[in-house]
Amino acid sequence: MNTPHKGLDITTAKSSRLDQVDFDNLVFGKYYADHMMICDYKDGAWQTPQIMPYGPMEMEPSSKVFHYGQAVFEGMKAFKDADDKVWLFRPEDNFNRINISSKRMAIPEFPKEYFFDALNTLLKLDSEWIKKGDGNSLYIRPFAIGTEYGVSASPSNEYKFIIICCPAKAYYSTPVKVLISDHYSRSADGGVGYAKAAGNYGASFYPTNLAKEKGYQQVIWTDANTHEYLEEAGTMNVFFRIGDKLITAPTSDRILDGVTRKSIIDLAKHEGIDVEVRRIKVGEIVEAAKNGTLKEIFGTGTAATIAQISGFEQDGTFYDLPEVENPYNVKLKKMLQDIQYNRAEDPFDWRYAVETK
Amino acid sequence: MNTPHKGLDITTAKSSRLDQVDFDNLVFGKYYADHMMICDYKDGAWQTPQIMPYGPMEMEPSSKVFHYGQAVFEGMKAFKDADDKVWLFRPEDNFNRINISSKRMAIPEFPKEYFFDALNTLLKLDSEWIKKGDGNSLYIRPFAIGTEYGVSASPSNEYKFIIICCPAKAYYSTPVKVLISDHYSRSADGGVGYAKAAGNYGASFYPTNLAKEKGYQQVIWTDANTHEYLEEAGTMNVFFRIGDKLITAPTSDRILDGVTRKSIIDLAKHEGIDVEVRRIKVGEIVEAAKNGTLKEIFGTGTAATIAQISGFEQDGTFYDLPEVENPYNVKLKKMLQDIQYNRAEDPFDWRYAVETK
Repeated sequence: MNTPHKGLDITTAKSSRLDQVDFDNLVFGKYYADHMMICDYKDGAWQTPQIMPYGPMEMEPSSKVFHYGQAVFEGMKAFKDADDKVWLFRPEDNFNRINISSKRMAIPEFPKEYFFDALNTLLKLDSEWIKKGDGNSLYIRPFAIGTEYGVSASPSNEYKFIIICCPAKAYYSTPVKVLISDHYSRSADGGVGYAKAAGNYGASFYPTNLAKEKGYQQVIWTDANTHEYLEEAGTMNVFFRIGDKLITAPTSDRILDGVTRKSIIDLAKHEGIDVEVRRIKVGEIVEAAKNGTLKEIFGTGTAATIAQISGFEQDGTFYDLPEVENPYNVKLKKMLQDIQYNRAEDPFDWRYAVETK
Repeated sequence: MNTPHKGLDITTAKSSRLDQVDFDNLVFGKYYADHMMICDYKDGAWQTPQIMPYGPMEMEPSSKVFHYGQAVFEGMKAFKDADDKVWLFRPEDNFNRINISSKRMAIPEFPKEYFFDALNTLLKLDSEWIKKGDGNSLYIRPFAIGTEYGVSASPSNEYKFIIICCPAKAYYSTPVKVLISDHYSRSADGGVGYAKAAGNYGASFYPTNLAKEKGYQQVIWTDANTHEYLEEAGTMNVFFRIGDKLITAPTSDRILDGVTRKSIIDLAKHEGIDVEVRRIKVGEIVEAAKNGTLKEIFGTGTAATIAQISGFEQDGTFYDLPEVENPYNVKLKKMLQDIQYNRAEDPFDWRYAVETK
């Protein structure tokens, strides 16, 4: 079938691969929904988006993405409520951010109508891939890559904007221990740390592997200049609770403007929690850990939602966090997920209804 | 034909595309030699390298390189002398460096024997693609990419190490004007600036585009912390001649250990030129430009060899460099190319003879 639909060209899969997926033992990122969207940029314009069966694509070995890393992405989730209605969470923020990332990586911005038409069409076609129940979701990965062939070091004149989807459960199951970085860094002032640029992630793997060898699951990144200020945790934004106060670093050109981060700030304020958005010194949390006022650390991100951190190493010393009653991270995660799964009011107007019928 | 050769599997092209190339109007990176090498990494080991006709390859849309930028590369050149002998220039340095880059990007190191066997085989098969004459060469692009499918943010368990080749002439024909960066930066302390990681290049395109809009061809990068120190020019290392002294920044975790850079340092010393490898303040070259002691600026790199810089903008003021008699950049470029093309003695043992018969 090849039918035009709202400006998209749609070719549906002949059969579904849904029955091949073991949803009880789901490995994140190993199964992809039946359909994907590919939109080509050439001759100075984004062409008609193509919805097609998920599958491999042909790439020239000289394609610029392999050599010069023009690649940006987003992470989003679709949730199914008790009535089989499908919801996205603040999708406009992801749309805006991928274009912010693209601009920094010299990739042309993607049209909003194409983005939302593609999302709605994919989620309608593959609605059976979205499972109900807490922690279940369909993870949506929009990304853009430079595809022009040619190894000269200049921006690509051709791109592909692609959306693929894969079923997901909760990302981290147990609290993680982290190493505070005092040598490696994630981003520079005037660099691309605020962008979801592919190279930022690849660059973090080696320092993270070194941390894993020492028994830590993640690195807390500090500023490259002094390593005195706390910035992000792994691929997440990071929050610290000292006493009853919740503290997180301000966004900057080094720190990602996380959708979950800003949602947690709003939810915490809504709950009457005192939230401070300011730079945080490593010394401040070490001091707070020593005097017992450091109650919680957690990371926030679309994949993990909220990932609790149970302790950290700094300068050779490990600081274990105490068990606290009614921790913020549990309460805020529940509030966030209740909105995402349409189990609670949505005072912030964050939910986006997907038409799947 | 499918024959094992020195541990490589070789499938030759049915016919050559050489006659499709207009060598008089060569666009760099648009034509690829008939053969390429692809070596897969899986199950914890590099598999048998495959020499095969250049052509597209199938990639999963979820391949990690598209999402997390695990991608590193090298740039090398093969030169043909007057007697049709083919030479590489310090190939061991490129081999060592791609493994340094790979380590930082959590990519497994590539075996030396595979690298050199593949180079020798490719250059023998495609020796007709290497043209004689000054500035002519076959540009060689080894690169490694993470190919495992799956969008979880962790190092790939599968890779491809690929070598492709394309005919090249001189890279920059005319002297370039550059803008000294006072906001954007290329790399951070503790980051990946010393690696030829794909994302470093994509991240430079947007600031370079902004410089182009102001009439400059390239950016001179300064340190991200203070923007007071000069580091690299575009994708090249950078040298400054003040009076009769040649100055370049030391390598660091922010600055690439350029093969051309260190060759130029050795050649200059060999010529009795006073070379200082030290940090250089922006203020020092502005002052030298004002008092007339700044004689030359040039970039060095495999693609460009030496690219003369005729002037720079700093803080809104443009400084034009004077014409000098017997400039270092011309003399050193000739010395370097005479060695590369086997027109001069090779006191440093830099040339590597390729068996093409």
